[in-house]
Amino acid sequence: MALDLHADVVSLTAALCDIESVSGDEARLADAVEEALRGCAHLEVIRDGNTVIARTHLGRAERIVLAGHLDTVPLTDPPNLPTRREGGPDGEELWGRGTVDMKGGVAVKLRLAHLLPEPNRDVTFVFYDCEEIEAERNSLTRIAATRPELLEGDFAVLLEPTRALVEGGCKGTLRVEVSTTGVAAHSGRPWMGENAIHAAAPILDRLAAYDPREVDVDGLLFREGMSAVGIRGGAAKNVIPDSCVVTVNYRFAPDVDEAAAEAHVRELFDGFDVVVTDLAGGARPGLDMPAAKAFVDAIGGEVSAKQGWTDVARFSALGMPAVNFGPGDPLLAHKDDERCPTAQLRAAEDALLRWLSHEA
Amino acid sequence: MALDLHADVVSLTAALCDIESVSGDEARLADAVEEALRGCAHLEVIRDGNTVIARTHLGRAERIVLAGHLDTVPLTDPPNLPTRREGGPDGEELWGRGTVDMKGGVAVKLRLAHLLPEPNRDVTFVFYDCEEIEAERNSLTRIAATRPELLEGDFAVLLEPTRALVEGGCKGTLRVEVSTTGVAAHSGRPWMGENAIHAAAPILDRLAAYDPREVDVDGLLFREGMSAVGIRGGAAKNVIPDSCVVTVNYRFAPDVDEAAAEAHVRELFDGFDVVVTDLAGGARPGLDMPAAKAFVDAIGGEVSAKQGWTDVARFSALGMPAVNFGPGDPLLAHKDDERCPTAQLRAAEDALLRWLSHEA
Repeated sequence: MALDLHADVVSLTAALCDIESVSGDEARLADAVEEALRGCAHLEVIRDGNTVIARTHLGRAERIVLAGHLDTVPLTDPPNLPTRREGGPDGEELWGRGTVDMKGGVAVKLRLAHLLPEPNRDVTFVFYDCEEIEAERNSLTRIAATRPELLEGDFAVLLEPTRALVEGGCKGTLRVEVSTTGVAAHSGRPWMGENAIHAAAPILDRLAAYDPREVDVDGLLFREGMSAVGIRGGAAKNVIPDSCVVTVNYRFAPDVDEAAAEAHVRELFDGFDVVVTDLAGGARPGLDMPAAKAFVDAIGGEVSAKQGWTDVARFSALGMPAVNFGPGDPLLAHKDDERCPTAQLRAAEDALLRWLSHEA
Repeated sequence: MALDLHADVVSLTAALCDIESVSGDEARLADAVEEALRGCAHLEVIRDGNTVIARTHLGRAERIVLAGHLDTVPLTDPPNLPTRREGGPDGEELWGRGTVDMKGGVAVKLRLAHLLPEPNRDVTFVFYDCEEIEAERNSLTRIAATRPELLEGDFAVLLEPTRALVEGGCKGTLRVEVSTTGVAAHSGRPWMGENAIHAAAPILDRLAAYDPREVDVDGLLFREGMSAVGIRGGAAKNVIPDSCVVTVNYRFAPDVDEAAAEAHVRELFDGFDVVVTDLAGGARPGLDMPAAKAFVDAIGGEVSAKQGWTDVARFSALGMPAVNFGPGDPLLAHKDDERCPTAQLRAAEDALLRWLSHEA
């Protein structure tokens, strides 16, 4: 099914959503995107697995990277596709998987590729796969490692949903398992054992009493979080449990690096066994850098901190300032009622067109 | 395979164990027990499902019930059968599933049935099935409901393992789910939700601080216990959990009835949602009653409280004093290294023979 880049951004978003592309199954959509981009004579098009990269080579003073992923989380049951348009109190909305996370952003990028044969900055469009699953399968990780030159630029915009408002940087995320051990015994004779669940009481006390930081970084306010996201313990209904594991997720502001985040969590749970299962640093918003400043000035509107973790951290790790900017409410991502106001799709397209077509 | 009641109690225990009878699969063993008992001319034998009951009718002043179950928990992998004898520091032991819980007790009963055509008290031997699984399948429950006259008597001895020492009564057991609810949110924005695991901190605090009672009931010391036996919460590693459930097992002394036990737990967890999932009252040892006194005097040795819950509570509910007395260390029941000193098998047989053959 060919994609029509002449269609308006709402129709194009719908067409992209209607090509299902749950993580690991992006080939058909990558084919369609590649084919559409190869129709744009001004672009160099590179295919790497199910990632498609397209670039201008106009010799501009700056190069901008516009990035976004092709995959979605699984559909609902029954499936929330094909997309449908419905009127709502705030205007028309496009409903269905991917409308928010993030085929609206993909549509905006494709429209820019089509509409701007001579953008005021050189542009690299990155369409990558496997973002919604474990980091080691994320193609942006792979390409940053194997062909980093393809991602080079002065500034990156990740088109993750931000309600078409600029969200700078992102928080880091650390996941640990905090655990206790005990001695199993029959629950009729608890004094013969040691209860690992009872021993976990101070872990929950420290979490409940934790006062998360709110930190200003480069002018944006980041709110941290220290949350139990899971707890498990107990083997049988008659047995004093010999193990209890609390999974804790620390979301840390980007003024803290990965090592400091880990040290903080180890200090908080001093006296308990702490195993790191997942750690990814954040990204400073970098809004003091000229390329970022120019973007914010061109786009206008409210600028805030990104509270979730996003792939902007990967660009940050490559030394590039990066912001999140895309259509859709992030709170509706992955939800059964995922839907995007069509006005946001148009607003995001207009804002980026304005930025990349004015005199640089 | 026929059972030879002339064989010594150790060989008979081994033969009983070697007929596998995991709960629900007791037919073959029930057949063998029934056949052996039908060979004892002085006994009336009744078969009800896979329960076998045999009784003397000598017109004695007292009737004693000797009860024990035919089933075992599942075998180990690889299987811990057939039984084998091994020397240990404390003498010979019989190893294998059922040697402790409780085919040693079954063998003692069969030997008594064979050796005592004219016991000094009328005796009802009860061999029942499905004790190691959910209470509603336990045949003692069924027969107490459908044919209670078969269980009538002045005093009951349950031949559950007690290291061949008298253990009086038993504690009750109450299981509840104590839970919290919260509001799910992305863990990057914990302030949008309410963390149900953090909210469970006071539940664990109260458990950790709980000071269990030690109570003297009819001269025996019962130690209570209030133990978390399970905890669960959390749906995904990025989600603030909206539910946390702590499973708590209260083992209460038999001076407390079921309603009082439930009220105590509800008071302890005041402010939380408490759902009862399992409740069984205990049994007073009743050692002040003449039949029980006579038994203890005849058997001799240390007398203590039964800390676990056993089917003596079912006899207690029928208005009969009941004690636990059988070969095997209860701490080895259900274990991979289940084994019984052969001296305990002989000691239990000797003690009960002595009690039932002396002048009453």
